[in-house]
Amino acid sequence: MSLEDVENIKKRILNFKKTLIELSEPSTLNGGTAEHTVREMSAEVVDSNPYSRLMALQRMGIVKNYEDIRKYTVVVVGVGGVGSVTAEMLTRCGIGKLILFDYDKVELANMNRLFYQPAQAGLSKVTAASMTLSRINPDVKIQTYNTNITLTTQFEEFLSVLKTGGINGDRVDLVLSCVDNYEARMAINTACNELGLNWFESGVSENAVCGHIQYIVPGESACFACAPPLVVASDIDEKTLKKDGVCAASLPTTMGVVAGLLVQNALKKLLGFGKITWYLGYNALSDFFPTMMIKPNPNCNDNFCIKQQEEFKNKVKEDPDSTIQDLPEEQVIHEDNTWGISLVEEETTSNTSVVDFGITPIKDNTNKNNSITESNEEYLSLNEGLEFAYQSADQTAPHEESLVKETELSVDELRAQMASL
Amino acid sequence: MSLEDVENIKKRILNFKKTLIELSEPSTLNGGTAEHTVREMSAEVVDSNPYSRLMALQRMGIVKNYEDIRKYTVVVVGVGGVGSVTAEMLTRCGIGKLILFDYDKVELANMNRLFYQPAQAGLSKVTAASMTLSRINPDVKIQTYNTNITLTTQFEEFLSVLKTGGINGDRVDLVLSCVDNYEARMAINTACNELGLNWFESGVSENAVCGHIQYIVPGESACFACAPPLVVASDIDEKTLKKDGVCAASLPTTMGVVAGLLVQNALKKLLGFGKITWYLGYNALSDFFPTMMIKPNPNCNDNFCIKQQEEFKNKVKEDPDSTIQDLPEEQVIHEDNTWGISLVEEETTSNTSVVDFGITPIKDNTNKNNSITESNEEYLSLNEGLEFAYQSADQTAPHEESLVKETELSVDELRAQMASL
Repeated sequence: MSLEDVENIKKRILNFKKTLIELSEPSTLNGGTAEHTVREMSAEVVDSNPYSRLMALQRMGIVKNYEDIRKYTVVVVGVGGVGSVTAEMLTRCGIGKLILFDYDKVELANMNRLFYQPAQAGLSKVTAASMTLSRINPDVKIQTYNTNITLTTQFEEFLSVLKTGGINGDRVDLVLSCVDNYEARMAINTACNELGLNWFESGVSENAVCGHIQYIVPGESACFACAPPLVVASDIDEKTLKKDGVCAASLPTTMGVVAGLLVQNALKKLLGFGKITWYLGYNALSDFFPTMMIKPNPNCNDNFCIKQQEEFKNKVKEDPDSTIQDLPEEQVIHEDNTWGISLVEEETTSNTSVVDFGITPIKDNTNKNNSITESNEEYLSLNEGLEFAYQSADQTAPHEESLVKETELSVDELRAQMASL
Repeated sequence: MSLEDVENIKKRILNFKKTLIELSEPSTLNGGTAEHTVREMSAEVVDSNPYSRLMALQRMGIVKNYEDIRKYTVVVVGVGGVGSVTAEMLTRCGIGKLILFDYDKVELANMNRLFYQPAQAGLSKVTAASMTLSRINPDVKIQTYNTNITLTTQFEEFLSVLKTGGINGDRVDLVLSCVDNYEARMAINTACNELGLNWFESGVSENAVCGHIQYIVPGESACFACAPPLVVASDIDEKTLKKDGVCAASLPTTMGVVAGLLVQNALKKLLGFGKITWYLGYNALSDFFPTMMIKPNPNCNDNFCIKQQEEFKNKVKEDPDSTIQDLPEEQVIHEDNTWGISLVEEETTSNTSVVDFGITPIKDNTNKNNSITESNEEYLSLNEGLEFAYQSADQTAPHEESLVKETELSVDELRAQMASL
């Protein structure tokens, strides 16, 4: 073997190594290196431009200024079946900064949902997600936290990230909850109530055929502690559902739909187009999409929620035009009265329904001709297709997605249950 | 340099090569090698089992026999924004065989939608998709055709694949149309009418904020030639939409939702659970989901459609219980009369509406209390939120997704237009 041969072999090894690194590693991890230049968000219609189809939204007049998306920081808590797709959608849309929280590892058992690949099994979800997302769009700043936000010290870190994780060290713009348990949702709720930060909750049922998203504006809409979690009724007889020794079922379809509806509404909020839906359910068995809006509970156990409610009331008093934060003005008209009865405008394709504590106007997109009913007697009459996640006092550890029937308890009984958790 | 060193270098090269191949190539391309063993579809609840969350659907009683999915062959025509996600969902669900048709290449301009990665730019879409899908689930047999089915010879090949592409050389089970143009949809329609093959059509509007899926059962529901294509109204003033020199806009959210709804309904059909929706629209601006059902046009220009209508009528006569192919029996009741007036049963969460040619009962999930109206005068009164894709005779090249207003033409005028294409 000549020296030349050895040099050739060395060159080949180097080339292999280079290709290997390109294939297995993202070009920029965790926000990119100092040298990395973020590409221009161009509207030019050429095959090589990854933003042409997004900038077309602006050129068509649907979005006012698409490039605004680069100013925003979104936190995704939970990067599993819904959260990973959520993060990928935001990355492909060119969001400014994405902050991911999860403490779980990728397993082969996750392969029935979109996003992760078998080769990533064993990696932490945030690392695997960050690698893939940076490869997809190196322009997005990605920050990851391999932590469990329900633990005290890690909750403090979470709170601090929400306060200062924004692009310029300011607070983040939006939090998307893609977790699968009650405790984590309550942690997000507590943090967002304290900071007055808007967030979206999302969930998929254990039987894989129902899901929902919910927009929570502290002080304006019910927080996660104001009422028991609202889930979509699957119309499956509870008795026929065998749950013993069975893991939760899941489908890439249901999770893809929920992630799509979640990010779509997040984009509507960030870029100011269309109408945000307060609560949007999805029943896959019948392609039914119940909607609803619940106003805050004046007796909520979360003190920050009460504080946000006061602030919201003052804001409405000072500037009645700004009552509906983040929503087109004409959508809901508030009247000034003790119970805060809401009137819902008749609109052809509106599906916003407003429900107050104590007073219960009902209207949804399945009951267009229903008159708005009012009753002081019943607690939160729910729209068709929706139910509370739990009902009885002996259910001490509520499963967010369990499929129990509508509650018959009073507000106080339900609140006592919430408090006992 | 010793011989041992050279041996070591050779070994390292071999290892690099092996890793390279594993990273860049699917373990099995185009159906797998003879040695490849398809994994058992196990219900065991362990982290290493990619099927535990799917088999849970069966253990919970939602799906009768999940493993049936391995018997089925699904054809996806068009693997772009909707089709690629559709193919990934089916792959992760463990479909038996997947056949992909497309003639396009991956471009950076596709990166605002899910699935493809920048490193795949330049590859044909079917090759890139097949590589990724085989890596995600090597149990799925994948067959690809880098062809344009609207060309005569390639249409013949397409027809032949539909006839014999099934797992045991029999015909395929379902065709999913994820194309973005009228001609390709018509090609699929022609083939499926000839073979009496069920298919789903799907589409996303050029302004990115609307989409739909449609289930077509030759002879039982309107085929794609029976009526002008039905699209979702976006409620955007046409005058404010600037289209000159702008490429079509697209969003990963809308496409993800449409793919999710499409595959969900395909799974319902293949595995026999829930209710299939004939036409399901999605308006992202208002989270509105209009539904509809159109029966076949007795004057359809497609002779095979007329033949399938005859066969369907005979089938109904012979066995009235089997009238609603693929749908739960109680959903729609057909009455035997000249116009085939359909009665729609009142059901709490049903959103199936049936519209006949000439006779027009309307009902959808936004108009639950609407009475069913009948009129021989008007042609296909559409449900709220829906409209035909084109209307006037001078629009010679119809854009499937163009957002024109509801037609005022008669059936015959519309059919004349269809014929002139």
